[in-house]
Amino acid sequence: MTDLAMNLDPAPAAPVDVLGVLDGVSQQEGLPDLAAALARLRDYVGEDLVQVEQALQSVPRAKDVVGRSLEHLLTLEGKRLRPLCVALSSRIADPSRPAPVSLATAVELVHSATLLHDDVVDAGSMRRGRPTARVLYGNAASVFAGDWLLIEALRRVQQAKLPEVTDNLLETIDEMIRAEALQLECRGRLVFDEATYFSIIEGKTAALFRWAMFAGGRAGGLDEAGCAALQAYGMDLGVAFQIVDDALDLVGDAAQTGKALFCDLHEGKMTFPLLVGAARDPALPGLVEEAMANEAGSITPEAARRVMDSLHRTEALAATQARAQAFARRARGHLAALKDGSAKDALVLVAEAAVHRNK
Amino acid sequence: MTDLAMNLDPAPAAPVDVLGVLDGVSQQEGLPDLAAALARLRDYVGEDLVQVEQALQSVPRAKDVVGRSLEHLLTLEGKRLRPLCVALSSRIADPSRPAPVSLATAVELVHSATLLHDDVVDAGSMRRGRPTARVLYGNAASVFAGDWLLIEALRRVQQAKLPEVTDNLLETIDEMIRAEALQLECRGRLVFDEATYFSIIEGKTAALFRWAMFAGGRAGGLDEAGCAALQAYGMDLGVAFQIVDDALDLVGDAAQTGKALFCDLHEGKMTFPLLVGAARDPALPGLVEEAMANEAGSITPEAARRVMDSLHRTEALAATQARAQAFARRARGHLAALKDGSAKDALVLVAEAAVHRNK
Repeated sequence: MTDLAMNLDPAPAAPVDVLGVLDGVSQQEGLPDLAAALARLRDYVGEDLVQVEQALQSVPRAKDVVGRSLEHLLTLEGKRLRPLCVALSSRIADPSRPAPVSLATAVELVHSATLLHDDVVDAGSMRRGRPTARVLYGNAASVFAGDWLLIEALRRVQQAKLPEVTDNLLETIDEMIRAEALQLECRGRLVFDEATYFSIIEGKTAALFRWAMFAGGRAGGLDEAGCAALQAYGMDLGVAFQIVDDALDLVGDAAQTGKALFCDLHEGKMTFPLLVGAARDPALPGLVEEAMANEAGSITPEAARRVMDSLHRTEALAATQARAQAFARRARGHLAALKDGSAKDALVLVAEAAVHRNK
Repeated sequence: MTDLAMNLDPAPAAPVDVLGVLDGVSQQEGLPDLAAALARLRDYVGEDLVQVEQALQSVPRAKDVVGRSLEHLLTLEGKRLRPLCVALSSRIADPSRPAPVSLATAVELVHSATLLHDDVVDAGSMRRGRPTARVLYGNAASVFAGDWLLIEALRRVQQAKLPEVTDNLLETIDEMIRAEALQLECRGRLVFDEATYFSIIEGKTAALFRWAMFAGGRAGGLDEAGCAALQAYGMDLGVAFQIVDDALDLVGDAAQTGKALFCDLHEGKMTFPLLVGAARDPALPGLVEEAMANEAGSITPEAARRVMDSLHRTEALAATQARAQAFARRARGHLAALKDGSAKDALVLVAEAAVHRNK
């Protein structure tokens, strides 16, 4: 049975911070203004992100498989966009305030916990492929590792001694789980329905961005109205972010995103490009169904090509990008209510960059 | 994929409360004093337990598979011993105080959440048998259902507005998960080591009893020393309870316990009778290993008989019962520090009855 412990972890990858990601994009796409703004942002919150990274890397982890699951996820993960949201929103009221590192760390831990549990659910969906002993053992360790990260996150939030921030996080996680349950229920049933789609992504992705903004705002001493504006920003930013994620599943560069293409499609998850495509090409749902029906445990290149042809023909990918940009624009609009300053400028930049990323 | 949603739930069973369980035992074993004491206890906390049951049954649940997983567990589960601990400990300082129903409900929700996640882990251990699509689907729903119950429990604890009770619960759950991780790591490796065994059961079982006593004590306005005595009681009660559980896995009546015999053995979990038996019969570890090595996904009757023969010969089961009683006695001893009254009498009774139960 001990051999089940083997090979849980793929080769480790260096953590990448969101500034690095955005930097790369701005250079690549020839956006010198964005690059310059990012350099200022790095000066502004770089030290906060270093502290968050240190906190994440010093989260205690046992030598058992649960500890190794944590280790794997925390060293592998990525953009640290949610901690950045906490850090920036905490400086709206008073730019000189130190960022609440425990809250910024906590939001990444909650995100990591949901990733671990989503992995179990998605491994559960590998029924067409290889439900090996390794997958089963990984499930068990990931369940406990996710549970533990969630609790660790809550402990760090409690340290801030802001009961309403804890309450709001518990409500947020409640929403996240309900959305995951809805996605699970819809999986493979191809619900081409925009209302259902938005219910899912608002809960599974945007709600935690909303909390990050609220937590930062509150910790930074911002008033009720200011926190409400930040929360509205968080929701729209989160929706924009998820829509871009959906697009990257179809057109991303696997070497950049670190994920294989067509994962969502393979797992039977509805994404925004498919939603737009289906509204414009009545044949698309059939093509998607065919692609998913492959019993070999993956989407065949031929089936993928037919889906992509439809999406290109209907300009669904361009429409997806446009919609993400519209949400990012609306996110920036909510900031009008807040007083001007570096933190606000940075949040404008984050919304801009979230839709220009390539990973 | 939708067929995976089928047959998640076995036939529903009526909830049984701990008083009913103890009542049956006391009549069966001809313990009229215990029966009379239980009648008084029923008068004393019966209404609290009815309120907890109502709260549990009105926990909102969606119509999706996650909701159905919750529904299944909350209507099936049983003894409500942990809520009873909260109710009784809340009355030590002032017997006329209403019991903190939200905390008493929360402890059962935490317990239920851990059961859901343990089920996933144990389904993960069905590697020798049938990792069917049904099992995989159940895993996904149970992961989210467990997550949601944990959050729901924490929300109810927050309602009590006692930050140290929330903090203590988070620390407790942290301990529970670490113990589960240790048990997972040891599974199938047959660690015949008493220190490891106690580390596991203190974390996975006793810690939550300890929190139940602390939460009740704090909510009831008990002082620091009183709460410490209650927590010590909770630990020893929990250990006694788990040792009896271990014995019931081997000699229980499946119709009473609702569980098949030899579950722990089949799942490669160390139990107290095996620990004692191995210390007295050097052949036992080999017999247990043989029993577990059966690839058919269950323990053969012949292998089970040989294990049981060894345990009877070495009087390991009698020693197990004696050890459980010793812990129950020590639990009662901690109550000496507390002022006399009905709640204290009831806790004495609970410790007595926990080692005399047959389910």
